[in-house]
Amino acid sequence: MKKVVLLRHGESTWNKENRFTGWTDVDLTPAGVEEAHEAARLMNEAGFRFGIAFTSYLKRAIKTLNIVLEDMDLLQIPVEKSWRLNEKHYGMLQGLNKAETAAKYSEEQVLIWRRSYDVAPSEIPENDERNTRKDPKYSDVDPKLIPLTESLKDCVNRAVPYWNDHIVPSLKTYDQVIVAAHGNSLRGIIKYLKNISDEEIPKLNLPTAMPYVFEFDDNMNLVNDYFLGNPEDLAKRMEAVANQGKAT
Amino acid sequence: MKKVVLLRHGESTWNKENRFTGWTDVDLTPAGVEEAHEAARLMNEAGFRFGIAFTSYLKRAIKTLNIVLEDMDLLQIPVEKSWRLNEKHYGMLQGLNKAETAAKYSEEQVLIWRRSYDVAPSEIPENDERNTRKDPKYSDVDPKLIPLTESLKDCVNRAVPYWNDHIVPSLKTYDQVIVAAHGNSLRGIIKYLKNISDEEIPKLNLPTAMPYVFEFDDNMNLVNDYFLGNPEDLAKRMEAVANQGKAT
Repeated sequence: MKKVVLLRHGESTWNKENRFTGWTDVDLTPAGVEEAHEAARLMNEAGFRFGIAFTSYLKRAIKTLNIVLEDMDLLQIPVEKSWRLNEKHYGMLQGLNKAETAAKYSEEQVLIWRRSYDVAPSEIPENDERNTRKDPKYSDVDPKLIPLTESLKDCVNRAVPYWNDHIVPSLKTYDQVIVAAHGNSLRGIIKYLKNISDEEIPKLNLPTAMPYVFEFDDNMNLVNDYFLGNPEDLAKRMEAVANQGKAT
Repeated sequence: MKKVVLLRHGESTWNKENRFTGWTDVDLTPAGVEEAHEAARLMNEAGFRFGIAFTSYLKRAIKTLNIVLEDMDLLQIPVEKSWRLNEKHYGMLQGLNKAETAAKYSEEQVLIWRRSYDVAPSEIPENDERNTRKDPKYSDVDPKLIPLTESLKDCVNRAVPYWNDHIVPSLKTYDQVIVAAHGNSLRGIIKYLKNISDEEIPKLNLPTAMPYVFEFDDNMNLVNDYFLGNPEDLAKRMEAVANQGKAT
């Protein structure tokens, strides 16, 4: 039995301010740090012992992972980082408040931008200071691969190859793997694993820092998937994510 | 110009309690955390921007590195971890207080154990709970390679191959590299780089968390080496390390 835990980062400062974050490299809030500790407690309790970890280039995911690894006494395991696990790029919406954007453009338009499968917000212009192609953090990535905006489809299309080319091969060596990433890059992987339709996937609201376990047989057939933790807590956090795009 | 910064971890709980630590996986003290932040400040001030980092399997080094990477906004760079960068294994002395050991066996004997080049303390027995060969953290390492005790020479002989096989090749890709490790594994690398004799190397007292910069030309000839930070501070910290083996 092979197990992969998908873990969305803990609450970030812009989750809290209800702003479109995307590739903006914001920090965890104190509550987000606490969520990471709680996630580690749940995984410890369930007896997980990861052999390798994967994360994005964004500090809210990396710090969530570092907290988890320290609490699980696994700081020594290898960690691979990739921009392909980054959050969906929100283009020109990055930095805007979700409720204000909803009041300005209508809740429906925000829902389209946030949750339609193949509609991307407007691109960030090349000379915008938010253009990640100019960020030295991404100097090792081919600039042509770095998005200026993304639909969920675009995000899925760059996250799933990472799953297939890096995470799946690691399961030959390790029985248990953790992926600490973001709402939409993980949504992409979950869509692929559970064969969820383009219409249904935007409705999946992944809560922050709740460990989502996927179990595979030796042929990498998915045999089971479940969240760790209290189901009420889970429902509450999923609803909180779903409500973020509302104007009030 | 290629640059490598060697950084010993910040103060650990057993540095503070003056106990032989070796491969015991003790944490940083609050003062050690502060030292790591100060090291990051010095490296930021000097304009460093590392492309890759190397560290040991021990949390005092990994956590020092994680603090530095966060403060330098470099959390996204690759980090390679190896047991070959671990502290010298202190065998049966691991866990004993240095001053008590000195009072019991004489300061001279402690100095021989701590600072002679090729004398190792007695081995930890196979069935001792301190035997790292049984530690799941090292399950990916060939048990035959895991020491039960080490002389400084043994430590040099497993650290230098890591320098040559992993760190030097990384300089083809990256101009600046950081190695966050331990007093004796770094002493081994420094001995090799500066061609220091077996007699002289035990006298080199590497202070905690003071960035030690090595500059190389394109043929990997060492052209300069210097510490960052206040020289008085440096002298004080080096003396503190030298005095740790005294009985009083």
